[in-house]
Amino acid sequence: MAKKYVYFLGGGKAEGNGQMKDLLGGKGAGLAEMTNLGVPVPPGFTITTEACIEYFKNNGKYPAGLWDQVLKNMKKVEKLMNLKFGDPKRPLLVSVRSGAKFSMPGMMDTVLNLGLTDETLKGLISMTNNERFAYDAYRRFITMFASIVMGVDRMEFEDLLEKMKEKVGAKYDSDLSAEDLKELVKQYKKLYKKLVKKPFPNDPYEQLKLAINAVFNSWFGERAKTYRKLHGISDDLGTAVNVCTMVFGNMGDNSGTGVAFTRDPSTGENRFYGEYLPNAQGEDVVAGIRTPLPVDALKDSLPEAYNELMKIYKKLENHYRDMLDLEFTIQEGKLYMLQTRVGKRTAKAALKIAIDMVKEGLIDKETAIMRVDPEQLDQLLHPMIDPKAKLKKVAKGLPASPGAAVGRAVFTAPEAEKWAEKGEKVILVRLETSPEDIGGMHAAQGILTARGGMTSHAAVVARGMGKPCVAGCGDLKINEKKKFFEVNGEKVKEGDWITIDGSTGDVIIGKVKLVAPQMTGDFEVFMKWVDEARTLGVRTNADTPKDAKVARNFGAEGIGLCRTEHMFFEEDRIKAVREMILSDDEEGRRKALKKILPMQKKDFKGIFKAMEGLPVTIRLLDPPLHEFLPHTDKELKELAKEMGVPFKKLKERNESLKEFNPMLGHRGCRLGITYPEIYEMQVRAIMEAACELKKKKVDVKPEIMIPLVGHVREIETMAELVRNTAEEVMKKKKVKVDYMVGTMIELPRAAITADQIAKHAEFFSFGTNDLTQTTMGLSRDDSGKFLPFYVDKKIFPDDPFVTLDIEGVGELVRIGIQKGRSTRENLKVGICGEHGGDPKSVTFCHSVGMNYVSCSPYRVPIARLAAAQAALREKMGDLSKSTV
Amino acid sequence: MAKKYVYFLGGGKAEGNGQMKDLLGGKGAGLAEMTNLGVPVPPGFTITTEACIEYFKNNGKYPAGLWDQVLKNMKKVEKLMNLKFGDPKRPLLVSVRSGAKFSMPGMMDTVLNLGLTDETLKGLISMTNNERFAYDAYRRFITMFASIVMGVDRMEFEDLLEKMKEKVGAKYDSDLSAEDLKELVKQYKKLYKKLVKKPFPNDPYEQLKLAINAVFNSWFGERAKTYRKLHGISDDLGTAVNVCTMVFGNMGDNSGTGVAFTRDPSTGENRFYGEYLPNAQGEDVVAGIRTPLPVDALKDSLPEAYNELMKIYKKLENHYRDMLDLEFTIQEGKLYMLQTRVGKRTAKAALKIAIDMVKEGLIDKETAIMRVDPEQLDQLLHPMIDPKAKLKKVAKGLPASPGAAVGRAVFTAPEAEKWAEKGEKVILVRLETSPEDIGGMHAAQGILTARGGMTSHAAVVARGMGKPCVAGCGDLKINEKKKFFEVNGEKVKEGDWITIDGSTGDVIIGKVKLVAPQMTGDFEVFMKWVDEARTLGVRTNADTPKDAKVARNFGAEGIGLCRTEHMFFEEDRIKAVREMILSDDEEGRRKALKKILPMQKKDFKGIFKAMEGLPVTIRLLDPPLHEFLPHTDKELKELAKEMGVPFKKLKERNESLKEFNPMLGHRGCRLGITYPEIYEMQVRAIMEAACELKKKKVDVKPEIMIPLVGHVREIETMAELVRNTAEEVMKKKKVKVDYMVGTMIELPRAAITADQIAKHAEFFSFGTNDLTQTTMGLSRDDSGKFLPFYVDKKIFPDDPFVTLDIEGVGELVRIGIQKGRSTRENLKVGICGEHGGDPKSVTFCHSVGMNYVSCSPYRVPIARLAAAQAALREKMGDLSKSTV
Repeated sequence: MAKKYVYFLGGGKAEGNGQMKDLLGGKGAGLAEMTNLGVPVPPGFTITTEACIEYFKNNGKYPAGLWDQVLKNMKKVEKLMNLKFGDPKRPLLVSVRSGAKFSMPGMMDTVLNLGLTDETLKGLISMTNNERFAYDAYRRFITMFASIVMGVDRMEFEDLLEKMKEKVGAKYDSDLSAEDLKELVKQYKKLYKKLVKKPFPNDPYEQLKLAINAVFNSWFGERAKTYRKLHGISDDLGTAVNVCTMVFGNMGDNSGTGVAFTRDPSTGENRFYGEYLPNAQGEDVVAGIRTPLPVDALKDSLPEAYNELMKIYKKLENHYRDMLDLEFTIQEGKLYMLQTRVGKRTAKAALKIAIDMVKEGLIDKETAIMRVDPEQLDQLLHPMIDPKAKLKKVAKGLPASPGAAVGRAVFTAPEAEKWAEKGEKVILVRLETSPEDIGGMHAAQGILTARGGMTSHAAVVARGMGKPCVAGCGDLKINEKKKFFEVNGEKVKEGDWITIDGSTGDVIIGKVKLVAPQMTGDFEVFMKWVDEARTLGVRTNADTPKDAKVARNFGAEGIGLCRTEHMFFEEDRIKAVREMILSDDEEGRRKALKKILPMQKKDFKGIFKAMEGLPVTIRLLDPPLHEFLPHTDKELKELAKEMGVPFKKLKERNESLKEFNPMLGHRGCRLGITYPEIYEMQVRAIMEAACELKKKKVDVKPEIMIPLVGHVREIETMAELVRNTAEEVMKKKKVKVDYMVGTMIELPRAAITADQIAKHAEFFSFGTNDLTQTTMGLSRDDSGKFLPFYVDKKIFPDDPFVTLDIEGVGELVRIGIQKGRSTRENLKVGICGEHGGDPKSVTFCHSVGMNYVSCSPYRVPIARLAAAQAALREKMGDLSKSTV
Repeated sequence: MAKKYVYFLGGGKAEGNGQMKDLLGGKGAGLAEMTNLGVPVPPGFTITTEACIEYFKNNGKYPAGLWDQVLKNMKKVEKLMNLKFGDPKRPLLVSVRSGAKFSMPGMMDTVLNLGLTDETLKGLISMTNNERFAYDAYRRFITMFASIVMGVDRMEFEDLLEKMKEKVGAKYDSDLSAEDLKELVKQYKKLYKKLVKKPFPNDPYEQLKLAINAVFNSWFGERAKTYRKLHGISDDLGTAVNVCTMVFGNMGDNSGTGVAFTRDPSTGENRFYGEYLPNAQGEDVVAGIRTPLPVDALKDSLPEAYNELMKIYKKLENHYRDMLDLEFTIQEGKLYMLQTRVGKRTAKAALKIAIDMVKEGLIDKETAIMRVDPEQLDQLLHPMIDPKAKLKKVAKGLPASPGAAVGRAVFTAPEAEKWAEKGEKVILVRLETSPEDIGGMHAAQGILTARGGMTSHAAVVARGMGKPCVAGCGDLKINEKKKFFEVNGEKVKEGDWITIDGSTGDVIIGKVKLVAPQMTGDFEVFMKWVDEARTLGVRTNADTPKDAKVARNFGAEGIGLCRTEHMFFEEDRIKAVREMILSDDEEGRRKALKKILPMQKKDFKGIFKAMEGLPVTIRLLDPPLHEFLPHTDKELKELAKEMGVPFKKLKERNESLKEFNPMLGHRGCRLGITYPEIYEMQVRAIMEAACELKKKKVDVKPEIMIPLVGHVREIETMAELVRNTAEEVMKKKKVKVDYMVGTMIELPRAAITADQIAKHAEFFSFGTNDLTQTTMGLSRDDSGKFLPFYVDKKIFPDDPFVTLDIEGVGELVRIGIQKGRSTRENLKVGICGEHGGDPKSVTFCHSVGMNYVSCSPYRVPIARLAAAQAALREKMGDLSKSTV
């Protein structure tokens, strides 16, 4: 017997259910679950993801039994609806929609009104007694079928439509008469034949087969691939296909279609929230072409349907115990639910909904914690417009995705990507966005559109990305071709600075100052739960007291990486640093270092004070010395003059310091070993600062870190130098400070020999930036030439500088921890690469038993949440599962 | 009871024996063994290496019981000799010599005639009835004691000696009268007081203690440390101290001293071979100050002693079953043996002795194999002077160490090192060498001295190093200060080219062409035994048919690494290569590659033919493309003109290709993945060459190797491309060629994920050059700034680019092999870094189960021998032991 590839739903019962997302996709499982719950869903069936996978395995051939099962299920639908697919009298029409395991809005293709032919059209007219409606459905179907199934340009059809509207003086599509549409269908079929080189198919089963294939094939369409790449979804899942009885929202004023959320997806407020477009099909809402009405408008126009919708949404939310995103259609007053799924929401809404649902007893705290995507939290942490700033507000659109953004205006997605690659901040300004714009939206700081509502493509995608978005700002007169927009007498050209506030909808001319966000009460409550759940510590990478304070406010429990070289660059000391580098001997270096010492000491005092009571890990000098010297002859000459050193000498020394591969050069502890006086000065500055503060009752916890250790003898020698110097300072200052000496683990050799190294190091901090570079033989500075290609072609699953390469680099981390603790049981272990703020990487850090992660100040809350989720997943026995 | 720190020897019986080298040092164990064998050895005692170690542990204090044991053993010697230490009538005099486990010629300090004071001098005069001898002994003792024990400048004493000789018109030291010496002793004692700021010690026990301390301390003298570093001997062994009754070779013409070998150390000929200096102390021979007589001269002058010496040497050689180095002294006709140890020998001698001793039944083949140092074999493989070359021979010295060398003349060791660092080849020209010159000798291509014999410092050390050396070339008038020498009317200044032939003793003006050496019959016999013993294959790294042939003659069993980029650089094709690089698109690149293909094909044909029947591993393009472009604007402009490309475009493309860290950049398979057409062309060239030869019945075994793989997807993609292209070519050429597809393992990530990679690779070749760079984060090109310091300060035990870092890089190799074979049992594994020719590293490769090593052609025999020794050591259950 053939495998079961098709699951029926209809008549109050479904073969599938809401748990079967892997097999039926999110949409199919939702339809089955709703059917089983007694919610009105148009009957139909779901072709499984397994069928899709088989289809690709067989190079586009259906697996055995699939088509038979499709035919059998079609019969069941026909029977239930008392209609017949392809019947010239009572034709059954269907929609064909994709539906993968994970919701991918706008990514997959949908075909409506399938089954319409010249023959069945007659039946539709006689059944509905509405010629205009029938021709409208037909012309829509031809357009969708031609563009989505046959892959020709949709715009050619739209052009004919526009011409017709012009010809008859229609403003909206709905102003066209039946005769107009009849004529249009004729033109469409002619155009179809011209473009596809075949007549429009007259066999509904042929239409169905081609449509199913198109859904399958769209799984590997560029748009879908891009979305999956951005969201870390596997290519191997496949999509299901949902074939459902068509219901029509475009059958007159007692019909319509809408999209709604069981709570406000932007604020999280507990109110039914949605948009409704009378006399329209679903595509009209999502595409954002006409601005819809609020769903409440139904209360007056169609109270019965409205009341049923109210009952259904509550039933569904209680059932799913989560905020849901619903699609519905009202056909001549009767309500049909077309889809339900967990609704996308802003971070603010996610927090509020999670907290409210705990209060309502719908979910527990742990579930609440799992409900918020750590990456999304970033939204809350985005800077806002400085309340004191003077603003040149020129327009107001919909507050579609919160946060403020500043950037230069660009008018196409490719331009957005191009400018961003050059390091420019841009705001993508579009009439409306479409899935082709995903890349550009990703590259932009924020998105501004002239058309579309809160559930338009731009708004949904921006919220998902955590990007500020102002949508549907109708005042904007955008000329995408000539690259400018006009608004209320102002003209903004490509490259001009603008600011948008996605929380208010304001559009502002110019570059506005942004400020750090204020944390809401919800945020504090939620993060308290988070901290209760997590076991992994979260520190920050901070080089200044200011950064340290920001991070501490965000909940950082210490500094995991304080880089001392940034201090060397400051204007008042770079001169002494250069003098030190240019000295021929130790004596000269010591003389220069003496000048730097009091300045470094002051720096450390500031940081120790900002972090009072918390540990501060200070890394001794790491970069190669040539980084501190000027790079051009002109600068060198000026420096020579200023320092009273002959230019030639300076030039020679500069040349002699140059390196072919500075990443693998004379840096890190290699500096400390060849010029011990540099590290000695730094340790002296740290310990003098610590001792002097300790005397003033400030609780200081310095942890001195040796960078780039690869061999046990390096840490042995350097740890001895640190301890000798520290003891000497404490003896002189007559005070004891608890301090630790440890090392970065950032070379494969260090991980491999961690058992030896741990004998001399009290803590390890994995420097996964450099460890990634060395383990993979990949220069971060140079990889731009091929790394994007690698990620694009799936040679690497992720950019290893963003998400830790767990199989390779991660394996060395695991080995390093295990070996390190084999000789020092209580070894403290952390991470201080960029990965410390990446949720997937934080999960890994938890799983290998690190004590803490350290990340940039603004990512501290994200790391805290990721750590809590990792702990909870571990509790649930599922650490491998990624967030989402 | 105190530990036993002192071992007695004398009266035909010793407390120690020849096995106790660890405790008594080589010299002490040899003296004990000789004593036990009934060989005449002056009585004495050995202070153990343990005492030395304790001495350093206690910061220069003697361990409990040591001094008591010294005193007690001194009494035993006194009794046996019927003399008394410090006695004014019958004084016992002793020598104090160092003696570590490993022979370190000239490295350690010796004090003779110890026990002489103004008081005991009288006894020596009355006992010997030879005032001249006694004063000569006294002045020698003062000089040695002052310089070696008290560390003052020996030259100040020599100056007084020279002045005295001048004053009385003496040519040799021996021309000085007793009165002259008496006066000299007075002057010496005055000078001693002036330099040391204390009078010369009058207590013989004080002398003894200071001398023992000096021997101990010399263990950490710079010379000793340098020698140990060069020879990989641990600092932790310590040295023993040998205190022996003095016997005098300077008591007249029936006295003398000599050094001999039981076989010829230069040729290996089975004849007693040595040198003898009448009326002299040992230091006179070794220092090479006077040119000695052949030992056979004794046959006539002192036949009795000669006959006994003959009997003793045979007895000792039979006992030790190895060629020995003997030191003896004849005091008034009576022979004393002062030392025996395994003799250093040239590679040629080592081979001959090993083979002869097998024939003589003294040793078996396996022992013979272990007797030859693989590194030393290099000597035999050194190029010789081209027999057809016209030579400007200007002088002839002693053929002290075989092989020819060409270089620029330098006159001091530091200059030699300085020039060599700049990449210059130098010949170190010295009056005579001393231990201070070790570094310079190492840096030089060869050594030329004006004084000293075959056993002079220069000769012994050069042979140990395998460097050509011409010694004792008396015609040379060297002015070390002014940096030139004159010889037979020619003047050679610093930097002038000279050539020396260490096999003939010829000194030649100018730069002479050298040719590959001819292998001797011994070499062939020996290497046959070697090949029978080894299990590890030995291949070569060769990019040209010429290199391939050389290597094949040296026994290479295939090519382990054929780099294709060298072919890209050749003059007739670099233009097409540059055209390819500068193309904007694939089409342009393909056009240029089409021009390169026939040339590459020709290259491969040549190599396949040279290696007929043997496997040839070809690495696809590896270096970043910018390496092929010119580096200066001038060159770029010329190229632009030649190619008809605008300079600006060329310049821009050149700039865009530049990398911060090219080692970690766009190279290796990253090129193949981003520009598959390049690899496709190369595979096509390889397979077309292979197919066309196969049709002509040439047996070809191509192994195609993908470089810089770090991720399974890289090898998967590239292996597919290789296989598809190969199959296509074979189909077209209608012939099947057995080929393999494999990868370099040169990134830590590759080793860590070798199980995945092996699924797609039929062989692994460890590229340990790059693997060392990435694992240790160490750029080979830049490490010159600190690596020498690291090796010097013992941060690293060895230069990791010379000897594989077994703990770190080696561990990744081990992991890579184990993981690789876990998914592909019959995975072929080799190494193709420079380490493939380093004996210690070869031992490691054997131990981890590699199939082969691959090294440069001239190192193939070395690798073969090292592989055989590794196999034998494994058989003996001792793989950890390094080669000696």
